[in-house]
Amino acid sequence: MTDPSVLVQSLTPSAIHEAYSLIQPYVHRTPLLTCQTLNTIASAPQSPEALSGTSSEGQTPANPKFRFFFKCENYQRIGAFKARGAFHALLRLIAERGQEDVQKRGVITHSSGNHAQALALAASTLGVPAYIIMPSISTLSKIAGTRSHGAEVIFSGSTSVAREAVVADVQAKTGAILIPPYDDFNIICGQGTTALELEEQYRELVAEKPNLSIRQGSTALDAVFTPIGGGGLNSGVATFFSDKTTKVFGAEPSFEGADDCRRGLDAGERVPAVSTLTIADGLRTPVGLLNWEVISNRNKVAGVYAVTEEQIKAAMRLVLERMKVVVEPSAVVGLAVCLYNEEFRRLVEKEAPEGWDVGIVFSGGNTTVEAIGKLFS
Amino acid sequence: MTDPSVLVQSLTPSAIHEAYSLIQPYVHRTPLLTCQTLNTIASAPQSPEALSGTSSEGQTPANPKFRFFFKCENYQRIGAFKARGAFHALLRLIAERGQEDVQKRGVITHSSGNHAQALALAASTLGVPAYIIMPSISTLSKIAGTRSHGAEVIFSGSTSVAREAVVADVQAKTGAILIPPYDDFNIICGQGTTALELEEQYRELVAEKPNLSIRQGSTALDAVFTPIGGGGLNSGVATFFSDKTTKVFGAEPSFEGADDCRRGLDAGERVPAVSTLTIADGLRTPVGLLNWEVISNRNKVAGVYAVTEEQIKAAMRLVLERMKVVVEPSAVVGLAVCLYNEEFRRLVEKEAPEGWDVGIVFSGGNTTVEAIGKLFS
Repeated sequence: MTDPSVLVQSLTPSAIHEAYSLIQPYVHRTPLLTCQTLNTIASAPQSPEALSGTSSEGQTPANPKFRFFFKCENYQRIGAFKARGAFHALLRLIAERGQEDVQKRGVITHSSGNHAQALALAASTLGVPAYIIMPSISTLSKIAGTRSHGAEVIFSGSTSVAREAVVADVQAKTGAILIPPYDDFNIICGQGTTALELEEQYRELVAEKPNLSIRQGSTALDAVFTPIGGGGLNSGVATFFSDKTTKVFGAEPSFEGADDCRRGLDAGERVPAVSTLTIADGLRTPVGLLNWEVISNRNKVAGVYAVTEEQIKAAMRLVLERMKVVVEPSAVVGLAVCLYNEEFRRLVEKEAPEGWDVGIVFSGGNTTVEAIGKLFS
Repeated sequence: MTDPSVLVQSLTPSAIHEAYSLIQPYVHRTPLLTCQTLNTIASAPQSPEALSGTSSEGQTPANPKFRFFFKCENYQRIGAFKARGAFHALLRLIAERGQEDVQKRGVITHSSGNHAQALALAASTLGVPAYIIMPSISTLSKIAGTRSHGAEVIFSGSTSVAREAVVADVQAKTGAILIPPYDDFNIICGQGTTALELEEQYRELVAEKPNLSIRQGSTALDAVFTPIGGGGLNSGVATFFSDKTTKVFGAEPSFEGADDCRRGLDAGERVPAVSTLTIADGLRTPVGLLNWEVISNRNKVAGVYAVTEEQIKAAMRLVLERMKVVVEPSAVVGLAVCLYNEEFRRLVEKEAPEGWDVGIVFSGGNTTVEAIGKLFS
């Protein structure tokens, strides 16, 4: 691929607008929800006990104020924002190579998660064969979900070497074109359309109901949080807001080093590999090369924060029980930062005593009742 | 109370409209949602295996068509439609007796469920003391939820005798006025406002997106389902639709005789007592006297159907996993009838080969992640 440090220069807000005009007929404009209960909980200081055993132990708990605006990509097609990137990448491919060539070759990817289903849906919608390489240990519901969109599922071993061998094999036979899950210009532009809608919907909502905002007459969010796994969503959102006042933040699980992006920023160098079984299973991958170019630019991403497994579970419980909205663990890491990360909470208290309007991207909602039961048993 | 057979004559659509004008500032206009996936599932015949062991075994599975419109009272204040009735009953009380008298006496009820929290919220909002008699074995989250709205929780034994003794005792001391959970004119009118919004929202939605309806240009739902516990919601909804073409149906769990209303209709006589531990814990009560007057009138309620515990769980799974919406088991009995009750499905197939637009009232969403885990473990 083109050198990421060159390619990143084309990642501009107008590239996101162009992506949106392409994918709009194919994706949902997902709802933007608010929740007074969550605003109230996040706007009260944590208990001193909650800080014991952390680096904030013994300090006065921070007392920031929040108004949240939840961009519900769990209500996106296939239940996650990944539909945006997959449709965009495939539409671009067809625009560049022609329907006939793409239809003859088909597209291929390796994923056991939401990207697999998203590409399968985009491919079946646009009349293109899709080959999805999944680890043979994938859960049956994910295999069935991918097949239900008409994709051909091909199994591989679980290691990246085994997986890539199968991809190469299928490509040799079919000529299928690889559509990667996150480290890709067109995927990033597609995911960035989430931010475009979020900004529009925030303006519409606070124009209609000014009380929902921290400040009367506000026309821009103070901040936006997205999860960071491979980084496609975060770098797309950061690209969209790069010429605006809204600050973009990323959130990661800290479990077993899943906070590779945060650690990479500390060290001044991208962490190329991660091995973690965090419950936020969409965030187990290291951040991609092109994504890193965006996220490591402080003018684009203002900071990346990490949360523990218990904090992710506590945030997920609040969203399910209080908002009555089903989200997967990966979706709530940004909310968990706002609720429980004292470093971030002190920042908000210091920067804006009156508080912040914060957009939270709920990235997806693909979980099962059994998985929920297991998490909280 | 006034003879139910007389009182029922005042239960008219205009009584519901009047209730709405009173409570509108205090309750949410909850969203009306649709879900293509659930339409598709319900519009395919069940497998012959699904019918084995039932009275439909060996028959050709029915093949009705459905378009669902989900009225999401799980997004109502306190997470259930009960807020409507509680606000209405208390506002009427204040209108009749004056703020001062009601404020001096306070209000009282016995409930371990959503009505307790609803009355506590209405009372604290309107500046009236509330005494809530709860069985001492109530779950801590429900006690905490009721207290969080400022109500005084007083414990009793679990039997109705023990409970009523405590109510009488508190009333003797305080003069508190009883606001019953369902068998009450004002409660029924309050719950009926759900139907008023549902009808409005259906018209708005299909005017904007005609494809959501079975029939182009439709201006009325073919049918509406609500759960039946004490019957307040169903009789309120049936009252609203009593001068319209929309048919109203009720749904109950069949477990341990929880389908008292359906059995009563079969026998031509109300079943006065029920003892069941159905997972649909909001539906464990027998239908009330005034509610029975409405529900047993075939011109108001077209039919009541029952579903098994497994069917309730299957419907709940679909709503959580596919719609990504958190509902409590009681909320999905109507959907479960449409999905799994062959008697009802045959009726729809016969009455309307093109299908029905069906409103489903999701009555509430008050559950916990632990309870979900336990249901599906």
